[in-house]
Amino acid sequence: MPWNILFIPTWFKIFMDEKKETGRIEAFSDGVFAVAITLLVLNIKIPSQLDDAHLGNELLQQWPTLLAFVTSFATIGIMWINHHRLFTHIKRADTGLMLLNLLLLLLIVFVPFPTALLAEQYALYPDQHAAAIVYSGTFVILACCFNLLWRYASYHHRLLGKGVDTRAVTAISRQYLFGPLVYLVVFGVSWLNTPATIILSFALALFFAIPGRALRLEP
Amino acid sequence: MPWNILFIPTWFKIFMDEKKETGRIEAFSDGVFAVAITLLVLNIKIPSQLDDAHLGNELLQQWPTLLAFVTSFATIGIMWINHHRLFTHIKRADTGLMLLNLLLLLLIVFVPFPTALLAEQYALYPDQHAAAIVYSGTFVILACCFNLLWRYASYHHRLLGKGVDTRAVTAISRQYLFGPLVYLVVFGVSWLNTPATIILSFALALFFAIPGRALRLEP
Amino acid sequence: MPWNILFIPTWFKIFMDEKKETGRIEAFSDGVFAVAITLLVLNIKIPSQLDDAHLGNELLQQWPTLLAFVTSFATIGIMWINHHRLFTHIKRADTGLMLLNLLLLLLIVFVPFPTALLAEQYALYPDQHAAAIVYSGTFVILACCFNLLWRYASYHHRLLGKGVDTRAVTAISRQYLFGPLVYLVVFGVSWLNTPATIILSFALALFFAIPGRALRLEP
Amino acid sequence: MPWNILFIPTWFKIFMDEKKETGRIEAFSDGVFAVAITLLVLNIKIPSQLDDAHLGNELLQQWPTLLAFVTSFATIGIMWINHHRLFTHIKRADTGLMLLNLLLLLLIVFVPFPTALLAEQYALYPDQHAAAIVYSGTFVILACCFNLLWRYASYHHRLLGKGVDTRAVTAISRQYLFGPLVYLVVFGVSWLNTPATIILSFALALFFAIPGRALRLEP
Repeated sequence: MPWNILFIPTWFKIFMDEKKETGRIEAFSDGVFAVAITLLVLNIKIPSQLDDAHLGNELLQQWPTLLAFVTSFATIGIMWINHHRLFTHIKRADTGLMLLNLLLLLLIVFVPFPTALLAEQYALYPDQHAAAIVYSGTFVILACCFNLLWRYASYHHRLLGKGVDTRAVTAISRQYLFGPLVYLVVFGVSWLNTPATIILSFALALFFAIPGRALRLEP
Repeated sequence: MPWNILFIPTWFKIFMDEKKETGRIEAFSDGVFAVAITLLVLNIKIPSQLDDAHLGNELLQQWPTLLAFVTSFATIGIMWINHHRLFTHIKRADTGLMLLNLLLLLLIVFVPFPTALLAEQYALYPDQHAAAIVYSGTFVILACCFNLLWRYASYHHRLLGKGVDTRAVTAISRQYLFGPLVYLVVFGVSWLNTPATIILSFALALFFAIPGRALRLEP
Repeated sequence: MPWNILFIPTWFKIFMDEKKETGRIEAFSDGVFAVAITLLVLNIKIPSQLDDAHLGNELLQQWPTLLAFVTSFATIGIMWINHHRLFTHIKRADTGLMLLNLLLLLLIVFVPFPTALLAEQYALYPDQHAAAIVYSGTFVILACCFNLLWRYASYHHRLLGKGVDTRAVTAISRQYLFGPLVYLVVFGVSWLNTPATIILSFALALFFAIPGRALRLEP
Repeated sequence: MPWNILFIPTWFKIFMDEKKETGRIEAFSDGVFAVAITLLVLNIKIPSQLDDAHLGNELLQQWPTLLAFVTSFATIGIMWINHHRLFTHIKRADTGLMLLNLLLLLLIVFVPFPTALLAEQYALYPDQHAAAIVYSGTFVILACCFNLLWRYASYHHRLLGKGVDTRAVTAISRQYLFGPLVYLVVFGVSWLNTPATIILSFALALFFAIPGRALRLEP
């Protein structure tokens, strides 16, 4: 229909604006992820006794701190990979998306606090669980926020691109339902055993990084 | 007019330069916003007593710190959304704009200080107001800086794009007059009641996030 | 010459690669500037006495800290504006440019240290000058590094764009010779008077922000 | 073959997606590099005695801290240059690359810790070596991670661009084999002499920055 051509500049402008809008949301989110993941290293304390005789020993005693550092780094890193994956499909932006994205970033930024808490409590009172509960509880809420953001954007393909891969969208939706449930199991474990909580969180982070590849291999 | 074609490369060059200039201002601002919003988490102190019996209690006593953290995060986040919205319309850049943007970022970067002040004073002396006054005063000045930046850029459409939506510009100008007045009211409240100041700042941040959608629904 | 067309894809590829290379140098530099400028706020200490009777007083006594914060923020901000201006003309990148840019960033990142030093010494020993000397000395070296970077890039237009404005390049070269000399004068003043050092640094930062506009008004 | 044309939109889409994907990996990495390199300055402690008589002396005594700061800054900076160089050739991205990149960033982010450790131990116990061993050991692992990332991406040109310069790829592969070996030598030295470790790390960083230019001059 020839009258359709008249609308092309308008559509082109909308396309340009939307693309730019998502671009800056991603840039801001990348910045927040980068700062949060780097601040984690501040939790690793310089030992107070620095002569060779004690230093090696003090560093070995810091292993829960180091494990918590690596776990949190892996978790935030995997969350960045997931954020990145979602925004491959999300092309449009509105105020609701920006607010839900802020809520997600609020929790990402909060992650260094329960990490430091867990590391310090575990070094002093290895048989107590309050810090592990706060730690795993944070990840339950985080998994819910990821779901919220994705459901909001993918509801009736509201903010997705025109030529989006419907099967990939469904696969992500199915996979994301799974997330809060698994983290809820880790939350349950955290009431019983702190080392198991750390190791499970780490294994979960690695596990959640792989589906992206599996998705592509699906027939 | 055929001689007009001769000017096309010049215009194209100007368009490219301007676009790139605003792009780097936005990238730098995104970085500052991202660091400032992430540093807020450093205000949350690790409790000194870490055994299960005391930890829960100490965490509960930190609720003013947590509330201040969430409020400041929401406020800086909403300010990022507003900054983003303004630079959807601002396409050109000059030294004046860069200086006013720096002034705005100076205040954004300053926000973690009154936040920490308010959190610490409120935990120790809940019936005193000096920190709440500094906190709400900062937001009055911030609202004024946003106005200054926007008036400078939108005066006679100086730095706006060619095909800018005049109605949206007028709507933002009207909405922005409103900002300093409302924060001035919160500033008045801060002399009387600290919890009300925190709750009002939070409500205001949420309220200022919504007009963007309301704007689009306007007939 | 028709055989010239054969080289177009090659040139196009070189143009694309170069553009991308400078782009990432700018993005990395923007990140460093953004973090350095935001870390300045960590120098502002939360007062130890937080009741209303003492807080106002303690905040007023912090005025040298606040002045140093604002001065350093303005200085790093203006340096970002200058960095941005140089990279409007610099289009190509080589290892030399990346190393000189790193040297410049090393000094930018160092700025919060002399700032904190000056603020703390001035609050305790207002009549002593060592910190002011370190502070102003840093800016002398910074001004030299800016010259080095610019001379390296603009020597025989080595790394500048094809269609660069020769008059603007000459104007920047002239203006940049000026920088180290003026900061050397402030360095001299720092041996005699600390408040004058802070005020002069601030005035200089504002002064160096304006030439960009003056350049454009030149006939 | 005319049926080939049917695949063009698909290829175009893949090209667009890939380009964007690498773009965001680079942006996130740039952010992490920028924060890690800027946090190094927090290791430089403000002297406790701030009057002119003691300040100069205390600053001079901090020379190992300053040397460690400059060394680490140079090392992270050079690593950024190398990361930048690799991603000039890497055009595609998959989950494996993102995970290996995260592993690399984990170690980059960790660098400020051994740096602070080395600076503090050396100032107190200049004749002891444990911190220098941890410091140089970190760089051995870092050099291995760089190799891992590059081998993964360049294996059968898996993630490299279509028109990649095969000679440049081979040159990088050869040069990168070299890295872990040289850092292993420094690791050996660290068991014997701490100042030599710092100076060698610094010289190595400068040396690794130059090959990029040498590569281009190769006949």
